[in-house]
Amino acid sequence: MLRSQPQKLLRRCFSSSAASLAGHTGSVESRAVVFSEHGDPTRVLRAHRYRLPKLDKGQVRLRFELGSINPADINVIQGVYPSKPAVRDDIGPEPVSIMGNEGVATVEGFEEDGTVEQKLEVGDRVVMGAPQLGTWQSHANMPFTSLIPLPASSPLSLRQAATLAINPPTAWRMLSDFVPLNPEDPNALTKQGGKKQWVIQNGANSAVGVAVIQLAKAWGVGTINLVRSRPSIDELKSHLESLGADHVLTYDEFLSRENNTRSKIKEWIGKDGEMRLALNCVGGKETAEMCKLLSLDGKLVTYGGMAKTALALPPSLFIFRKLTSTGFWLSNWVQTHPEERQTMMQSLAALVSSGKLKEPETEVVELKGTDEEVTQQLSEVMKKMEEGRGKKTLLHWKDE
Amino acid sequence: MLRSQPQKLLRRCFSSSAASLAGHTGSVESRAVVFSEHGDPTRVLRAHRYRLPKLDKGQVRLRFELGSINPADINVIQGVYPSKPAVRDDIGPEPVSIMGNEGVATVEGFEEDGTVEQKLEVGDRVVMGAPQLGTWQSHANMPFTSLIPLPASSPLSLRQAATLAINPPTAWRMLSDFVPLNPEDPNALTKQGGKKQWVIQNGANSAVGVAVIQLAKAWGVGTINLVRSRPSIDELKSHLESLGADHVLTYDEFLSRENNTRSKIKEWIGKDGEMRLALNCVGGKETAEMCKLLSLDGKLVTYGGMAKTALALPPSLFIFRKLTSTGFWLSNWVQTHPEERQTMMQSLAALVSSGKLKEPETEVVELKGTDEEVTQQLSEVMKKMEEGRGKKTLLHWKDE
Repeated sequence: MLRSQPQKLLRRCFSSSAASLAGHTGSVESRAVVFSEHGDPTRVLRAHRYRLPKLDKGQVRLRFELGSINPADINVIQGVYPSKPAVRDDIGPEPVSIMGNEGVATVEGFEEDGTVEQKLEVGDRVVMGAPQLGTWQSHANMPFTSLIPLPASSPLSLRQAATLAINPPTAWRMLSDFVPLNPEDPNALTKQGGKKQWVIQNGANSAVGVAVIQLAKAWGVGTINLVRSRPSIDELKSHLESLGADHVLTYDEFLSRENNTRSKIKEWIGKDGEMRLALNCVGGKETAEMCKLLSLDGKLVTYGGMAKTALALPPSLFIFRKLTSTGFWLSNWVQTHPEERQTMMQSLAALVSSGKLKEPETEVVELKGTDEEVTQQLSEVMKKMEEGRGKKTLLHWKDE
Repeated sequence: MLRSQPQKLLRRCFSSSAASLAGHTGSVESRAVVFSEHGDPTRVLRAHRYRLPKLDKGQVRLRFELGSINPADINVIQGVYPSKPAVRDDIGPEPVSIMGNEGVATVEGFEEDGTVEQKLEVGDRVVMGAPQLGTWQSHANMPFTSLIPLPASSPLSLRQAATLAINPPTAWRMLSDFVPLNPEDPNALTKQGGKKQWVIQNGANSAVGVAVIQLAKAWGVGTINLVRSRPSIDELKSHLESLGADHVLTYDEFLSRENNTRSKIKEWIGKDGEMRLALNCVGGKETAEMCKLLSLDGKLVTYGGMAKTALALPPSLFIFRKLTSTGFWLSNWVQTHPEERQTMMQSLAALVSSGKLKEPETEVVELKGTDEEVTQQLSEVMKKMEEGRGKKTLLHWKDE
């Protein structure tokens, strides 16, 4: 099995000729999490082995360090997500799809095409620049054009890198593209002399939510954060506040008339502030309540629907308060903004390196043993995913 | 009582000096529909008389020909509409508000201010250029800046003029400002070579709805029109089709799975067409169904909420289909587009004159008799308004 080698030693060793790597590739076996039919995530996933073919021009040989599991992956497996992994008929007796949208990998080699050797070195770390490439596997050949190299100058931990490509960019775009809150934007409302800007969000402890809290803090934007109540609510509130949350409320506190929370929130914002943006990954009645707190011409941006119900929004908010309700999906955005994405990823990596953007809490699951054993492990991981919302799970294939 | 005089004779007769009019004004009595408290429209409206004061500079003396009743007026009387008529403490023993947002009036005179005499002549017809000015009265003094003169060159009937200022502009803006369908727009999607554009709307037989049908027809845009079923449904369908509706469906036909209406609609639009705009004045589940038929990046524009329920929109439409839901309220728009409004009104008047835009079906109610008798009449008119949706009612004060 081809192993990772020290970066300095390997640097460019394959860049002038891929022959030496090509010699190896015939023998590299990848272990992958696949499904052949959509269905119950605890039942349809299984471990699968396949041999990697020779690299084509411009392709990169990757060794995956961590493959991230996001809530949307459940929907991908169920077949109810609009973006699907490719159906591969070249890696086994029956067509299968390799799971995994997010992850971090190390470059083990590549086949020159006039570009890749300018941009990449062996030993570099990369994250995914295209959706559903299959990150829940140990090794893969992928086109360089689908990858985002991480800056070697500000090295991230593997956990930081594995959680960088989906949720923080989603937070960044939602704070930038609907109401201009990014101070680098020439029209930024956060510029000196403007009103202090506020954002309200539900599901504030989600991976996107904590990125919103920290980016907003870094950009001088206040946040009002709604979370579900739980036995350890005080701990959660302290945690979010330590990340920079200005205010954290449970949905019950938020909706309670006794607490007079609406007046309190208006006081927090004050006359020198305004709130034009609400971020929603839940749905349900508190979404409309969030919108009622927005100033005229407010924007509601939906990026998830954890409550699995339709958004219920009174017509009067649209007609008289000029509310706009829209949605955000990173996969749509990246298709039309490839270069802007590269720049944003470098900025996000720098924020992570500087400690201003902490990754969400993660837990690494080591996949090991026979295919049957790994298949059993996957079923347990999926069961846990469906039950609750613990730490974000990262898959790692243990070397055999 | 000052009466309307032939236009030629009166032309500019007050424009060089307002003294002669001022002599009359002391004796002009206006009869007005007022309320002193918000509440049940069948109970709180009453007839009231007051003497008009002398004209101030730039003010115009109007004799109202017709005052229109729109569904939103009910909400104004109930006190649940954001735009309210002024509370007047100068026209009676207690403060009252004069009702009426839309109507047509004849100019009986004005007091020069350097502008009004350039723009207006006695005998001209005007419609309202600002909200809630109080059109349900026989006479009024109003600032010229709140009025929109109608072109004398293309004379409209009184019924045409009385229904011109609110609903047709609402239709025009909704077909222009969210998806560019107006062929005069440099970015119009209806230009040669582009895909044939379609619009879907509910409440299609409303006053706005019939304006949408006719404007869309004039602009080369196809319409799919949803209406409530009723005993005379075939008659209604024929009527809307005669105005230019491409397809008319009842909500039952639209939602029926047996009819496979969704496939039919996709066939109507075809590969050479696209539908990016849905107009909503109802709410309820068929609103979401309309949105599901829109192409990627579709716009839902809400301008009413007749079903009195929240809009129920699945998060996936926003996230994956890039739906934007927003609202339109003419009162908001006119505040920021005073000049654009004047141009649009002239274009609309021309469309009406040319027969391309027919007014909705109307019924004139003659207000006559003592204040008590008129108050009784008003109660009956309001009862009828609340019961059903007959023809649009226009109020006319019968000369005493």
